[in-house]
Amino acid sequence: MIKVGVVGGTGYTGVELLRLLVNHPNVELRVITSRSESGRKVADLFPNLRGFTDIEFSVPDAGQLEQCDLVFFATPNGTAMTMVPRLLEAGVRVIDLAADFRLADAAVWEQWYGMPHACPEFLAEAVYGLTEVNREAVAAARLVANPGCYPTAVQLGLLPLLEAGVVAADNIIADAKSGVSGAGRKAATGTLLCEASENFKAYGVDGHRHLPEIRQGLERAAAKPVGLTFVPHLTPMIRGIHATLYATVADADVDLQSLFEARYRDETFVDVLPAGSHPETRSVRGANHCRIAVHKPQQANTVVVLSVIDNLVKGAAGQALQNMNVMFGLPETTGLGGVALLP
Amino acid sequence: MIKVGVVGGTGYTGVELLRLLVNHPNVELRVITSRSESGRKVADLFPNLRGFTDIEFSVPDAGQLEQCDLVFFATPNGTAMTMVPRLLEAGVRVIDLAADFRLADAAVWEQWYGMPHACPEFLAEAVYGLTEVNREAVAAARLVANPGCYPTAVQLGLLPLLEAGVVAADNIIADAKSGVSGAGRKAATGTLLCEASENFKAYGVDGHRHLPEIRQGLERAAAKPVGLTFVPHLTPMIRGIHATLYATVADADVDLQSLFEARYRDETFVDVLPAGSHPETRSVRGANHCRIAVHKPQQANTVVVLSVIDNLVKGAAGQALQNMNVMFGLPETTGLGGVALLP
Amino acid sequence: MIKVGVVGGTGYTGVELLRLLVNHPNVELRVITSRSESGRKVADLFPNLRGFTDIEFSVPDAGQLEQCDLVFFATPNGTAMTMVPRLLEAGVRVIDLAADFRLADAAVWEQWYGMPHACPEFLAEAVYGLTEVNREAVAAARLVANPGCYPTAVQLGLLPLLEAGVVAADNIIADAKSGVSGAGRKAATGTLLCEASENFKAYGVDGHRHLPEIRQGLERAAAKPVGLTFVPHLTPMIRGIHATLYATVADADVDLQSLFEARYRDETFVDVLPAGSHPETRSVRGANHCRIAVHKPQQANTVVVLSVIDNLVKGAAGQALQNMNVMFGLPETTGLGGVALLP
Amino acid sequence: MIKVGVVGGTGYTGVELLRLLVNHPNVELRVITSRSESGRKVADLFPNLRGFTDIEFSVPDAGQLEQCDLVFFATPNGTAMTMVPRLLEAGVRVIDLAADFRLADAAVWEQWYGMPHACPEFLAEAVYGLTEVNREAVAAARLVANPGCYPTAVQLGLLPLLEAGVVAADNIIADAKSGVSGAGRKAATGTLLCEASENFKAYGVDGHRHLPEIRQGLERAAAKPVGLTFVPHLTPMIRGIHATLYATVADADVDLQSLFEARYRDETFVDVLPAGSHPETRSVRGANHCRIAVHKPQQANTVVVLSVIDNLVKGAAGQALQNMNVMFGLPETTGLGGVALLP
Repeated sequence: MIKVGVVGGTGYTGVELLRLLVNHPNVELRVITSRSESGRKVADLFPNLRGFTDIEFSVPDAGQLEQCDLVFFATPNGTAMTMVPRLLEAGVRVIDLAADFRLADAAVWEQWYGMPHACPEFLAEAVYGLTEVNREAVAAARLVANPGCYPTAVQLGLLPLLEAGVVAADNIIADAKSGVSGAGRKAATGTLLCEASENFKAYGVDGHRHLPEIRQGLERAAAKPVGLTFVPHLTPMIRGIHATLYATVADADVDLQSLFEARYRDETFVDVLPAGSHPETRSVRGANHCRIAVHKPQQANTVVVLSVIDNLVKGAAGQALQNMNVMFGLPETTGLGGVALLP
Repeated sequence: MIKVGVVGGTGYTGVELLRLLVNHPNVELRVITSRSESGRKVADLFPNLRGFTDIEFSVPDAGQLEQCDLVFFATPNGTAMTMVPRLLEAGVRVIDLAADFRLADAAVWEQWYGMPHACPEFLAEAVYGLTEVNREAVAAARLVANPGCYPTAVQLGLLPLLEAGVVAADNIIADAKSGVSGAGRKAATGTLLCEASENFKAYGVDGHRHLPEIRQGLERAAAKPVGLTFVPHLTPMIRGIHATLYATVADADVDLQSLFEARYRDETFVDVLPAGSHPETRSVRGANHCRIAVHKPQQANTVVVLSVIDNLVKGAAGQALQNMNVMFGLPETTGLGGVALLP
Repeated sequence: MIKVGVVGGTGYTGVELLRLLVNHPNVELRVITSRSESGRKVADLFPNLRGFTDIEFSVPDAGQLEQCDLVFFATPNGTAMTMVPRLLEAGVRVIDLAADFRLADAAVWEQWYGMPHACPEFLAEAVYGLTEVNREAVAAARLVANPGCYPTAVQLGLLPLLEAGVVAADNIIADAKSGVSGAGRKAATGTLLCEASENFKAYGVDGHRHLPEIRQGLERAAAKPVGLTFVPHLTPMIRGIHATLYATVADADVDLQSLFEARYRDETFVDVLPAGSHPETRSVRGANHCRIAVHKPQQANTVVVLSVIDNLVKGAAGQALQNMNVMFGLPETTGLGGVALLP
Repeated sequence: MIKVGVVGGTGYTGVELLRLLVNHPNVELRVITSRSESGRKVADLFPNLRGFTDIEFSVPDAGQLEQCDLVFFATPNGTAMTMVPRLLEAGVRVIDLAADFRLADAAVWEQWYGMPHACPEFLAEAVYGLTEVNREAVAAARLVANPGCYPTAVQLGLLPLLEAGVVAADNIIADAKSGVSGAGRKAATGTLLCEASENFKAYGVDGHRHLPEIRQGLERAAAKPVGLTFVPHLTPMIRGIHATLYATVADADVDLQSLFEARYRDETFVDVLPAGSHPETRSVRGANHCRIAVHKPQQANTVVVLSVIDNLVKGAAGQALQNMNVMFGLPETTGLGGVALLP
């Protein structure tokens, strides 16, 4: 059994992680911390967990966490970086679901996150946990930076094109739509039901924190600079991301459908739909899959890729468990076999 | 392995049954029938199942069904009764998720369902599959009538009161609210998103088919006639039933909280919440639990019981699997261990 | 032109009042106050008002307010009572959309609202602004206590029965369902889209502040004590209240449909639907109407009344304008002629 | 008074047209036709209209329609073209809310709509009713082709750029999201609440009927061929379109904000938001406005325009009334002064 600790577990990423962990056959959940909810049963805050766990939130305690094999951070940005060095030193492996270790360049991180980085010397070691790209490095990693939700959907949709070099890298458009759970569980006017339901809007058009993360991933795949316009939108539903991706095809004769199918042939969690399909976010609700369709409308030279994930699963907690499975030598699907909830 | 057939599987009850069956460790899904979708892959119609099953819909074929150990009917009312006698004769056990065998009195059935009953001689044999009431009979049954969604939520909320005789049986009110999936997957104007979202309404106030079914169950529990007013409502969400139940307490000193806790102490799928609670439908979304709270507002003599289920799980497919587990001697929770999806 | 001021205008009641006021032909909106948003254009906070008004929020200023003919309070409970005496003294008429003046008994008010009342001597003067009951008193009033949303829907649904004395007054049940806007626009976890959508729950079963208000109104109508069980629920939509009301009919021969039609024959904003109907909340979305249907299911002696309003219109801002029209001798429908937005 | 007839009035465009017409001060609604609902009161089908009109649906009758000054067609594609010639001959003016007269080229029309055109000789005369482009021609028109919903949002967002020639015309991307009412009121599985809520998907990526309409409008504005990729999506809400538009700026020094403000300075119904804004669809719910924001993210050479409308108002019935006002010499805002319903 893997002895697991969770730091921060009162948000949506946290409850989703717990939903998956309590049914994982190789996990022993040892500790879950929250200063604000300390002493309260997790199942009291999240009633779906009643009957599945009796664990209580506790005040973060370094000694307790150091007895774990693996610690997940489901904290706001800027928290993990203050605790990770000590945990690693104690031999604990770490998966950070926040953004602290996602960018390789500390200066870029500090520009977008607006604070100094507490341990930039660990950025080089951290493995970017997009499993389908870095599986081997994840297996050996002490520290995994779990990808953001938008970056997961966008990168999985674009990687085959950029790795194969079949599109122009200088003008890529990612028009992405997210359910409201991406904004978290904190009390805020903008995500009230009465503000966010029956409404659709873009936000952060002039620059969203996931932009440098996506660009970093795309540039690694393309091995060259990438010109990216990324526009996120809020769509009135709880879960799901739909990325609509546009690029210009350099060679009109490439069989894009085959390219995608070949790239993901051995990936359990990436499903390339038949030509002509339109993936629906609900087809992955609660599941760790990414479903992708590729189009070339009207036979013009613009390729349109449609990529959907559940932002809380493949975009957060599910991918974290997938990485945990890889890190501990388990079959990658362990504890992730649930079927999406439809309807 | 239990060899399982499903007749009719293109509705919401059907896809939910499939979601649960494909992950059940003791089930081998042999056949799923649909005239209209014959030849089409199930996962093509319900994309959440892509990667979990390759089975196709087929035209109903008696011979094939007779090779199953168990056949589920997820058909419209009036279909199962035309096929059940032959299947039983062939030694196949049956769980009917429709209403054909729920009422013991054929005349009452015909009045409410508006057609003659094809095999009234089987009504006496059919076991009403509210597992928490009829577990032993279910275990031995050839034919189980799986309860309706409203009847499950209402009966589980009222049984402790009626079995103990602590409320007046002649004036019980069940004000029930259902998500829209209760109306099924058929094309209809009234359940379009644009008609049913951002809207709340009652329907069937003058008489809903679940009224006689609920009354039958309550009268068995009370062992006397029951006066019931049942008002169903449509609430703008996909899944979930919330029953708000009102009755007059005969004896002001009865400890109702203890009464409920005692009644359901050994029931895995019925969760009596702490005093003062308000169960939420989302706490059971996708799960087989019924969560219940009991109140006596303002210390008056009206007891208010709040009872929630997922209409497609405990109110349909989940309870059907629970009954299957009982019928085949498996632990009752097998394949039903999933945590509700929250948020 | 009526010179109008609004105190507090940053909540949903406030923006709805503004939506109606900017198109009212006899109103000149002079001042709208908000400490937190002072200096900000109203249309900046509420973009639906762009192009309709250039007014800015300002810090509350007694001198400015005293120059108005009428001041609306769209403030949290407990604010209006600190400012009303001075305004009345200055000859300004007041409509309070909060609860400060709704209960005649100061002790009851203090018990339910948890604070001392700042000016209990005005409770007797305040006219309870359920226009259909107190039209004449409203016309002459200096101070109108605009009813709560639940109390409006429940009282309009029960008044004909209690005024006529045709139901037992000692056991009335009001099962009410509200859209989420009833909880206001303040940042709170419980009303986030991800908490409140795809979910249904009761709340405040043991006692909600609208209970004494409803009981007071019903007892005035019945001229005797009323035994009331009131259970509010949160339903996943923005606007609308649906009250399902249960009472026991004393005389089985009373023609309830005629009773309701006669009671509301001259009321523009109360619409008694044909027998057998089920009113939908969306049929009044954005409109000042209350639509009502009356049933006696299965010919038993329980009457079921269904009553719907838009909680922000007839349940708040619309009824406030209706009262303003009455107070200033205008046709009651002035500025309230909009058709409900459907779909 | 303008004597108005409506052909086809049972869909969402129809009920929205009625909502606006019954409150228009210069309109006398003479006839509304529907074969299927003939003899039924309009307010019976659409209960929001109870108390506003007593008109009944009637069987289409040429004689009756010929007595109108203006006939609106709110019919499926292919109906208006069979009746329009006779009405025009009788001196009746026509606004077609369907697509029959939107495309100037009969061959293109027949290709996209899959049927022969019944009166291609009228295509040249028909005025494309995007009021902000063709106001003078609309004023004089006998026959107005009211634009589609997507085309309205997309064209208003791109016209300033193309008219001024400041973007490359050969690679324009329109990523558009629509509420479900755009799919109409017909019973269909795909738009059931349980299919379309809590879900997001693209559709028609390989070719949507609004593509040639948009391209025609953009080419007229640019006076050159336009390369357009148009991807529509379904977003889980009732009303609203959000178009996110991408183009490459030729000259980096153009002040795009000023360009848009200048273009729409005199347009009541087009609102250019301050720089940095993100328009929300709810800010136009029920109103005839289009709100637009223009961005150049990260100072790169891609311009991003955000454009929102209510698909049933500015995208259909509201624009039709706006055109009617222009045709009959009324102030353009008559009957269109309502404030958007928010929340």
